[in-house]
Amino acid sequence: MSVEWSGLGPELLVKLDRDTTTPLKTQLESTLRTAIQTGRLGVGERLPSSRELASTLGISRGLVQDTYAQLQAEGYLTTRVGSATRVANTAQLPPATPRPAKPRIGTDFAAGVPDLANFPRNDWVWAMREACRSVPNAMLDYGDPRGSPQLREVLAAYLRRVRGAAADPERMVISTGFSQGLAVTLRALAANGITKIAFEDPGYADTSVAACAQSGTTAIAVPVDEDGIDVDALDATPARAVVLTPAHQWPTGVVLAPQRRQALVEWAARKDAVIIEDDYDAEFRYDREPVGVLQGLAPDRVVAIGTVSKSLVPAVRLGWVVCPPGLADAVAEQKSFSDRGSPGLDQLTLARMIESGRFDRHLRRMRPVYAQRRTALVEALANFGIEVTGLAAGFHAVAHIRADEHAVIEMAREQDVGLYGMSAQRSNRAATPSQLVLGFGNLTERAIQAGIAKVGHLFDT
Amino acid sequence: MSVEWSGLGPELLVKLDRDTTTPLKTQLESTLRTAIQTGRLGVGERLPSSRELASTLGISRGLVQDTYAQLQAEGYLTTRVGSATRVANTAQLPPATPRPAKPRIGTDFAAGVPDLANFPRNDWVWAMREACRSVPNAMLDYGDPRGSPQLREVLAAYLRRVRGAAADPERMVISTGFSQGLAVTLRALAANGITKIAFEDPGYADTSVAACAQSGTTAIAVPVDEDGIDVDALDATPARAVVLTPAHQWPTGVVLAPQRRQALVEWAARKDAVIIEDDYDAEFRYDREPVGVLQGLAPDRVVAIGTVSKSLVPAVRLGWVVCPPGLADAVAEQKSFSDRGSPGLDQLTLARMIESGRFDRHLRRMRPVYAQRRTALVEALANFGIEVTGLAAGFHAVAHIRADEHAVIEMAREQDVGLYGMSAQRSNRAATPSQLVLGFGNLTERAIQAGIAKVGHLFDT
Repeated sequence: MSVEWSGLGPELLVKLDRDTTTPLKTQLESTLRTAIQTGRLGVGERLPSSRELASTLGISRGLVQDTYAQLQAEGYLTTRVGSATRVANTAQLPPATPRPAKPRIGTDFAAGVPDLANFPRNDWVWAMREACRSVPNAMLDYGDPRGSPQLREVLAAYLRRVRGAAADPERMVISTGFSQGLAVTLRALAANGITKIAFEDPGYADTSVAACAQSGTTAIAVPVDEDGIDVDALDATPARAVVLTPAHQWPTGVVLAPQRRQALVEWAARKDAVIIEDDYDAEFRYDREPVGVLQGLAPDRVVAIGTVSKSLVPAVRLGWVVCPPGLADAVAEQKSFSDRGSPGLDQLTLARMIESGRFDRHLRRMRPVYAQRRTALVEALANFGIEVTGLAAGFHAVAHIRADEHAVIEMAREQDVGLYGMSAQRSNRAATPSQLVLGFGNLTERAIQAGIAKVGHLFDT
Repeated sequence: MSVEWSGLGPELLVKLDRDTTTPLKTQLESTLRTAIQTGRLGVGERLPSSRELASTLGISRGLVQDTYAQLQAEGYLTTRVGSATRVANTAQLPPATPRPAKPRIGTDFAAGVPDLANFPRNDWVWAMREACRSVPNAMLDYGDPRGSPQLREVLAAYLRRVRGAAADPERMVISTGFSQGLAVTLRALAANGITKIAFEDPGYADTSVAACAQSGTTAIAVPVDEDGIDVDALDATPARAVVLTPAHQWPTGVVLAPQRRQALVEWAARKDAVIIEDDYDAEFRYDREPVGVLQGLAPDRVVAIGTVSKSLVPAVRLGWVVCPPGLADAVAEQKSFSDRGSPGLDQLTLARMIESGRFDRHLRRMRPVYAQRRTALVEALANFGIEVTGLAAGFHAVAHIRADEHAVIEMAREQDVGLYGMSAQRSNRAATPSQLVLGFGNLTERAIQAGIAKVGHLFDT
């Protein structure tokens, strides 16, 4: 049944459908509410009496009265004794314009993206089913903000075995990835009076400045050379914490030299400082065994942050923070403030993935895949005489080009190839030399070959 | 094979197992690393030469050399030309003492916990499998920090239909629950210069003070009476934002009266202020249809925050923030700073739960379950002459007792019954009257009856 509500102008139609399971009252209420929300019924407008509307619509007067009462309780209608029911003061909003989606780039050498197509979907579903079946009811409540005790146990053992960490489940916090791990760590440091934070340069650049601003700390850039972060330069700053990527420096790809590791630990002891280790992609090392985490050397000084964003996919949103004793409670408190703890079922799912050996198997399967893509990139660039460095681990590399990187990036984009420059990772964007940071994790060998073939001629001009 | 390493004292055993798939080098390396990490090999201690150790263990010298090189690269060993290999400067930590687990209370009337045993595990696994099967690879990457476009679409429709919201997916952010939703909203307000935030009293009390401190804002307590928050009292404060629970006030259970709704919206317009609506349990209303969200009345002024922590379980960790146009970008930015976005697969899983009708079905199934528990509580308390209020929705109620609430709580705990007082939710803990806030969502009818039977005699003494 569809009735034109003439008393309120011809534009408002009340449509009641007697053939659905939706009660008539719900239909009427929803129609009126939407009419008010969208401005079709204007502020102050008088509604027909319940008797009048009931008769027009062929429904009971009680139903209209109930509807008016509901909308009055919600604040959409006002009724004074002896006076008509009117539309109350409400606001209308035009619908928002959807943000334009980021244009998809044909061949995108963006770094930091693993092979999304090889995410072990079936293993994840299997582990989720196992987790859902076996989780005790009590674990479906809010839990320990540090995370599932079971996952912390399993991860600590994994990190001891695979990353040489001195990981203790009592001093771990399960985060939803590196960003959150860093954010809660910086807040915990700020709460402990540590407000000057050194970052590698090149490194996270803008991201580190923003992360520090959010936590009430200040970022200080410290240069990186072929042995990793310059510890003497670090020592000359007022920083009492440093964020770094020892196993495979982001973005240069250098490995922190043994003497630098020692010097860094000594610096931390001397300055009563904290080392924040971003262990982001060491699972994928090609030339030799991955270098163990710095945290194992100085568990009293190092916060080790990791994530499954590279080993699985970013959409899983799980990571960990291994804390020194003096920071563990403060980091847990910040995690609690941030979100009360990571998703419980996801945590148990990851624990099952690791315990069952499926996580290791996935890593074993992916290593040769990435190694082949790495070789494809090196060979494709060699065709154009371009040297590549920083390839010890992970799935990005640094290409040393002669042409201006900004010009190359712009011209490549016209060919539908996404290239990214080192300067975006530097505190001083004007710094040289001209370098590209090329991710190859989510590109097939053919895509790599074709992409470089398309733009390689630009590198030298 | 198990060899006692006599040169380093009898306590260190190197055990190499030739029958596992773990390479001998990995075994040796891990043994030495752990020995250094635990202090069994002390700082400065000299290691045997590679020739010597190889001969003792019956393995190749190259293998020992590789192991030493790896541990040197990691910073555990130092080698100078012409000098022995020694243990470098590392720190050891004693294992942390596990935190004592919270004691389980026999019958716990803690509020805010839904029926954990009735979580639709099979539906969730089904929806997760569907999500994992159908998710495009590109959606496994970091996504829009606002959350999955699909879930925002589905949730906006749900909130329009069920909660009378004026929800626009472009102005929604998917959070990991109310805590995070509030945290990112407060930070977004602070970034917009709004730093005085009113909260209901009784209300979140300590939690709101802490949440404000974390975001650089200040909490101001505003009294609640039987019609909800006192808008005149609010108007007298310098607050330019207010956090409230209109559909079912936490913890008193009153419903915000229609004239207060209008007054609040007018206050917000006059003061250019923001209303933060915590729509936490209105899905479960017993006496009539739930009151629609305030957000529908004034979408230009209201931030509506919701979560599935009550409708499903807290461990799912998903929620939403429906933003006014002026705040949508700032909230999305804060969400990005906080964790770069909520878990992708979980979001698609919830979308499938809602789209498939399984979410509604679960709510339909739970309403009579909670209604029966509610009746059981009211009747059990009536046996002791105790009046109960605040029962319009959700699964907690306020019991008005004559005895001192603190004394009652303490004595009940001795009987293994968990009771909770209103004073913990007040800004002034000494305020009266004596009231208990009793949750009944996660207790069976029998548990409710038995629990109250045990402690009911305390309420009057």
